[in-house]
Amino acid sequence: MPARPYLLDCDTGVDDALALFHLLSDDEVNLVGVSTVSGNTSAAQAADNTLRLLAAAGRTDVPVAIGAHHFRMAEYDGGVPHIHGDNGIGGVELPASHVDPLAESGPEFIVRMARHYPGELRLIAIGPLTNLALALELEPRLPELVGDLTIMGGAALVPGNASPVAEANIINDPHAAQIVFDAPWTITMVALDATMEQLIESDDRERLRSAPGAIAPMVAEMLGVYYDFYVSVFGRPCSALHDPLAVAISTGEVVPTLAPLVRVTVDATDGPGRGQTICDMRGVYNGYPPQSGAHVRVVLKVDRPYAPLLMDRLLSFA
Amino acid sequence: MPARPYLLDCDTGVDDALALFHLLSDDEVNLVGVSTVSGNTSAAQAADNTLRLLAAAGRTDVPVAIGAHHFRMAEYDGGVPHIHGDNGIGGVELPASHVDPLAESGPEFIVRMARHYPGELRLIAIGPLTNLALALELEPRLPELVGDLTIMGGAALVPGNASPVAEANIINDPHAAQIVFDAPWTITMVALDATMEQLIESDDRERLRSAPGAIAPMVAEMLGVYYDFYVSVFGRPCSALHDPLAVAISTGEVVPTLAPLVRVTVDATDGPGRGQTICDMRGVYNGYPPQSGAHVRVVLKVDRPYAPLLMDRLLSFA
Repeated sequence: MPARPYLLDCDTGVDDALALFHLLSDDEVNLVGVSTVSGNTSAAQAADNTLRLLAAAGRTDVPVAIGAHHFRMAEYDGGVPHIHGDNGIGGVELPASHVDPLAESGPEFIVRMARHYPGELRLIAIGPLTNLALALELEPRLPELVGDLTIMGGAALVPGNASPVAEANIINDPHAAQIVFDAPWTITMVALDATMEQLIESDDRERLRSAPGAIAPMVAEMLGVYYDFYVSVFGRPCSALHDPLAVAISTGEVVPTLAPLVRVTVDATDGPGRGQTICDMRGVYNGYPPQSGAHVRVVLKVDRPYAPLLMDRLLSFA
Repeated sequence: MPARPYLLDCDTGVDDALALFHLLSDDEVNLVGVSTVSGNTSAAQAADNTLRLLAAAGRTDVPVAIGAHHFRMAEYDGGVPHIHGDNGIGGVELPASHVDPLAESGPEFIVRMARHYPGELRLIAIGPLTNLALALELEPRLPELVGDLTIMGGAALVPGNASPVAEANIINDPHAAQIVFDAPWTITMVALDATMEQLIESDDRERLRSAPGAIAPMVAEMLGVYYDFYVSVFGRPCSALHDPLAVAISTGEVVPTLAPLVRVTVDATDGPGRGQTICDMRGVYNGYPPQSGAHVRVVLKVDRPYAPLLMDRLLSFA
């Protein structure tokens, strides 16, 4: 089977790096490029991080386009260095890549790739949805052109991670998210409901640290700040695999076992629910009967623990 | 032990009627009165219903005060006849009571009783919180005067029942709810998380229908429309015991086993999250560590199935 074309839109980011490495490790994936957006770090920093990570993996062939620096109705405010480190990848200093970012913007790149692979491109968005909203404005036919859209973002029946009800990617740019969720495509939404169940632990990090090759020990180092942050959430150093889980679901290696197709509205007010993905889960008591107009598949449960698979992939780099 | 003073604030309502009967069946409860508010039906209709129910139970000694007809920033819009019947109590026609409602308003009555039983009055609010908000304005010391406050309302980690995220009592008057949740008292919030787990079923209704006395068969009749409504929720005729569960928790007969003390903010915007009780449940992954400023105990789980207890009480009426 020929490798399928994938485009990753991300705000690299520690778990974005894991997602990138998962994609790079898969022979059935043709990663046609990466677009970056501000979120965990700035769009420019995220592009630089991505180029360095690609170089470390010997994949300087993958183009990277810098996307939106500011959000639609708010300025980028400096990211979350206490979670992802000062540079977005846990403070780890990687050698610079000799490759420059593309001259075109992230949204322009997304549109060009979607037109180049009509009906085939698999789009995975694991940062704020600013670039996708801009791409929809550049090309209203994007929903027809994109073959598959998987988003890491939102929460349905679990708490948020950036407010009591909002997940970080969505609250960073709720207006963009509203545009993306309102567009006529089927979205696979990999929510915190699924990602908070998929953890890598201290012993996983130790295995990465002592593994041969360059990638695994580098990842172990990147995970330092990230693991420290999660002590406040889980009571121990570990990490939720938000972004890479979205990749594994898009590639089909991890299969959703509970993912009702429901209506989703984004709270784009300035009220206390700002950034919430309001998912209509009222069917929970009755096997989620069909909802008219529903086009978001909210992933709540998957068929297996994902960490062992990700570990195999990270350890597979020479 | 002398009976403790209770005041029930309600929008009677089929499950309000069950709550009332639970209170009347408990020898340790001194029901000092009932205040009514619009919600399931109008405040005036709720008072009339309550007086008729009290008369049917031979309890014409319990005073009833009519409370707010309109909500703080919205007009009462006619209730939910498809759930609670045209008259609020499933369309059942009960004989009129010879007792009139009190001349004072529901909020005035609440304040008078709280002053009469300082530190002792147990307040159970199972309708929109309009009367309580008005009572707080009449008497800012209400939080000191009231001995215990239990509310049926809101949802934490389950869907709403009036919108994807809002429970009916709260969405009816989110501005009142905001005032009540912001006041300096400890609130036991009996959320949908707990009440949707407590159901009476068709065979329970059959037992009530064929039981001796006047109350049980009357309740069976009232439950007709209510059971029909719940087919759309649970896929079978049954009923969630929202309001009476709050009573059983207030009296201590049902004990919460998972009820974290968390911060709660009411969404009083006009956005898609309107009426949501935004509970900060982010401690779910870590045993709910203490939160500064938290004063709402959100009941998620209780120690036993409540339906058998309620059935015993309903069957205990002569």
